[in-house]
Amino acid sequence: MLQSGDFAGAGSEPVRSGVATPALLVDIEALDRNIAVMAERAAALGVKFRPHAKAHKCVEVAQRLRRAGAIGVSCTTMEEAETMARGGLGGILITSPLAAPWQLERLRRLLLRGADVMSVVDCEAHLLGLAAAARGAGRKVGVVVEMDVGVGRTGCLEVDDIVALARQAAASPDLRYDGIQAYWGNLQQIMPLAERARLVGVQMERVRGVLAALREAGLAPAIVTGAGTGTFGIDAASGLFTEIQPGSFLFMDSCYGTVDLGAGTRFEPSLFVAATVVSAARRGRVIVNAGFKAFATDSGLPGATIEFLTSHCDPTVNLYPAFHVVRGPDVVDRWPIAARYGNSA
Amino acid sequence: MLQSGDFAGAGSEPVRSGVATPALLVDIEALDRNIAVMAERAAALGVKFRPHAKAHKCVEVAQRLRRAGAIGVSCTTMEEAETMARGGLGGILITSPLAAPWQLERLRRLLLRGADVMSVVDCEAHLLGLAAAARGAGRKVGVVVEMDVGVGRTGCLEVDDIVALARQAAASPDLRYDGIQAYWGNLQQIMPLAERARLVGVQMERVRGVLAALREAGLAPAIVTGAGTGTFGIDAASGLFTEIQPGSFLFMDSCYGTVDLGAGTRFEPSLFVAATVVSAARRGRVIVNAGFKAFATDSGLPGATIEFLTSHCDPTVNLYPAFHVVRGPDVVDRWPIAARYGNSA
Repeated sequence: MLQSGDFAGAGSEPVRSGVATPALLVDIEALDRNIAVMAERAAALGVKFRPHAKAHKCVEVAQRLRRAGAIGVSCTTMEEAETMARGGLGGILITSPLAAPWQLERLRRLLLRGADVMSVVDCEAHLLGLAAAARGAGRKVGVVVEMDVGVGRTGCLEVDDIVALARQAAASPDLRYDGIQAYWGNLQQIMPLAERARLVGVQMERVRGVLAALREAGLAPAIVTGAGTGTFGIDAASGLFTEIQPGSFLFMDSCYGTVDLGAGTRFEPSLFVAATVVSAARRGRVIVNAGFKAFATDSGLPGATIEFLTSHCDPTVNLYPAFHVVRGPDVVDRWPIAARYGNSA
Repeated sequence: MLQSGDFAGAGSEPVRSGVATPALLVDIEALDRNIAVMAERAAALGVKFRPHAKAHKCVEVAQRLRRAGAIGVSCTTMEEAETMARGGLGGILITSPLAAPWQLERLRRLLLRGADVMSVVDCEAHLLGLAAAARGAGRKVGVVVEMDVGVGRTGCLEVDDIVALARQAAASPDLRYDGIQAYWGNLQQIMPLAERARLVGVQMERVRGVLAALREAGLAPAIVTGAGTGTFGIDAASGLFTEIQPGSFLFMDSCYGTVDLGAGTRFEPSLFVAATVVSAARRGRVIVNAGFKAFATDSGLPGATIEFLTSHCDPTVNLYPAFHVVRGPDVVDRWPIAARYGNSA
């Protein structure tokens, strides 16, 4: 493989307008302002934050969040969890259930290496798998029972099932019952804000009922986790959550750009795709090397670089090997997107 | 990074149903049958074939195609061209114009290493860039003038512009005028077949006009390239094309699954995404770890593997680090998707 250093002679890397494209740029100053706003908001709302690595997949970003007060890192995939553990991050919460033999074997190895890991579950098979992995590593693993709060994907719908799983986790010598997860990913971008709050309120009553049933059973959870960039203010203000797991606030893609997050919460775009004008054969239009998009503009001759906002940060980040970290016109660093899918397997 | 070998102890890799997911499976027998059909069709139609690497991004697949008679490999990106050159492939045609300084610098290095490369152009700036790269490497580079045949992306619309670029390429000491490209990507999946043929016919008349003008100017092209999986039969039968550059026929995604390719041309699906059932908390429905897709099925408990057809092969392949090569129930090899975007830069 060619390494980026191979092209240093061309003088392209240190200058923002000269990066090889398509490239993913992150503006480090905007990123740091977004992190500072989230840290300040979480503190003001009285919740901890365990931001989601599915948004950034990058050790350097997770370490930056930890320095700003994050208590850990939420992860969707084994790649993300393994990458974060290698980067020295603790408080790893796997927010999607682990079911396959290879997932559980990789979890066993993570535990064996001393990683600080919890995973969500929504059925007994998940619990048994986690317990076997933990037993194989000679260490307990944390369990967070997931509620289905209307997303219709993973999670238990019935209160009784949640209590039963919590009880079983608490009773297992291989498991540590840590709490519950209630994440309404489908409500994050509902507009207007009042309607979003109303829909969240409906699910919040269900969470309240689950918490009452767990307390009743002597299983009051240490952790109640959930929330994304679109609802963390509402969720945290309920007093039900002990922590939040937003991710998109780091980058603020164009999907989030028009979402009202409430007074006092202002994040800014920090993520951009740089593309090159490859053809300008027709007047008033240029063709760039980023997907099949053509833009009504005459602002570039072939060879020029144009930067675009991203429409959905998570899958966009997954398409790139690294962030080009920019400050003004300069490329000041390069952060590998080390947990990009497939980098570790 | 964990290597796949790390998990060999779990016994998951040699068995199709045990691969870490999401995984991209290619059925080697179906792939080889598809390659054999294309080789046979091209021979019967009297055209050469230079299949497109944007579909597979994989040296092992390109080498297999070469053994079946391919005269080279078409590429969209510098990653693809560099990867194919490293894999010993010749006859590399870059089918999208090169414009940025970093692209031209990487082309210069490819030429310096002796790679056998041509690139399309649609304006004088492209020609000047290619000439400078070639001069820097002390070798000529091949030039193919691209026509815009209704896609509205890259390529020249006017006959005079095409002739002028061809003349300029032929006169340059650093360039070798090789021919023209006319690719109607927007027509590949038009149904019914008769309507696809009618729309191709309209553009074909324009190609005929360009060829007459070039001959008139003493610039008869050695190469007339184009065609995809959906139109190669029509295109080749016209007698205007010297070669075709299809790619999707290798895999036959579900978009192509319903496209009538005409009598005598039968490709079969060879590409599958393997996913794991992660949750089955609701009766009659399972949730898998492949995107946000849920399927109306009760055919798997958590931990089970399910395989899916792919909907569009090119961007799907780009999401994975390698093909798991399967034959029946066995995983018989692993082929890196070495030109996946960002692997080399």
